[in-house]
Amino acid sequence: MPKLKPEEVEHRRQEIIDAARACFLRSGFHQTTTDEICREAAITPGGLYHYFGSKEEIISAVIDDAARTVVTALSQRAKLPDLRSALREVSSFFFESMRDSGLDNVVRFDIETWAEALRNEKLAEINERAWAMRRDWLETLIDRAKNEGMYGEAVAPKALADLMMAILTGLRVCKVMWGESFDIEGAMRSLFLMHAGQLVTNGAVELPEEMAVGPAAGAA
Amino acid sequence: MPKLKPEEVEHRRQEIIDAARACFLRSGFHQTTTDEICREAAITPGGLYHYFGSKEEIISAVIDDAARTVVTALSQRAKLPDLRSALREVSSFFFESMRDSGLDNVVRFDIETWAEALRNEKLAEINERAWAMRRDWLETLIDRAKNEGMYGEAVAPKALADLMMAILTGLRVCKVMWGESFDIEGAMRSLFLMHAGQLVTNGAVELPEEMAVGPAAGAA
Repeated sequence: MPKLKPEEVEHRRQEIIDAARACFLRSGFHQTTTDEICREAAITPGGLYHYFGSKEEIISAVIDDAARTVVTALSQRAKLPDLRSALREVSSFFFESMRDSGLDNVVRFDIETWAEALRNEKLAEINERAWAMRRDWLETLIDRAKNEGMYGEAVAPKALADLMMAILTGLRVCKVMWGESFDIEGAMRSLFLMHAGQLVTNGAVELPEEMAVGPAAGAA
Repeated sequence: MPKLKPEEVEHRRQEIIDAARACFLRSGFHQTTTDEICREAAITPGGLYHYFGSKEEIISAVIDDAARTVVTALSQRAKLPDLRSALREVSSFFFESMRDSGLDNVVRFDIETWAEALRNEKLAEINERAWAMRRDWLETLIDRAKNEGMYGEAVAPKALADLMMAILTGLRVCKVMWGESFDIEGAMRSLFLMHAGQLVTNGAVELPEEMAVGPAAGAA
């Protein structure tokens, strides 16, 4: 193996991750072989193992890289000084991702990875870290919105970020699994109505007793 | 095989479904063998195949049965004449199911079934039908709530039912996949705040232009 400068090593590593990701999305989690990844990345098996010790390490790197890419893209779109414009940008990003033609393969890969993570502690950890990266980013944004008075006092940023991540996860799974019978556009519209407090007619819904916490809920 | 009356056949069939369900939840989708199901149901392989032609048919029956069971339980709890009490009962059912100690195995089975359904059209159909059964039930309830003035004019019952099913799916997946770092109680509290319109301070959020439809949105 020729001596490479650190930035060349980093560059080659990223190329392998991109190639592996393309293979996983095309062939699925189980069907993808390291041979296929080598062909896609134009590298020998010996060369590949210089960067990654196992298929598991490659999968971990792909999952980690995807989380970093999303957070970087979101950060760029949300860095507007005006909160409203920033949220508009983040919403657009969310819509675009739900309409992306490549979504089916991404969700298939997610589901296969989850199934695997249920039996594989190392993979479960990587998955959890990648999820926490996105959630933490969202929590910071919600915290900012709360500080600027957009959200009420009863809102717990971490919990709302958890909920939002769960909703995104559910929408993606349902869109892919239930096909035509799942109205993704209608579901997203309902989500916006609900988030904006325009679902229920004023005062028509009480929170269940066990849910009633904080000053805003107390005032209801 | 001895001649059985139709109700005896139906009873035996249900016993096999319950046994198979127990096996799938205990051992997982792939690890469960028909031998294991036979032992659990105290039936010979020949007897089993009198009721179900293949492992796939058993899985389909288990999925279908689970959906019917949930809808029956929900219907019983929601049949109160007063809408508010009915909704309170349905909410409790939802909380209880999210706190059930058996949830992990149920979600694991779901995820494995989804992964399988991505490659198996027949199973995808069964899955979709089971999901539509729950969604249709929820749509009817939302429709009733809209007719009784709890929901605004802009609410589309089918779309809101789709969203609610997606949220439930997402909460279950996240609770099982992200472990301690996912605050399920906080996420459910946030969901109630959001649904009740107590998330945002009044008028602080506009709907994005593409989401603005119907009279309620127009008035915002």
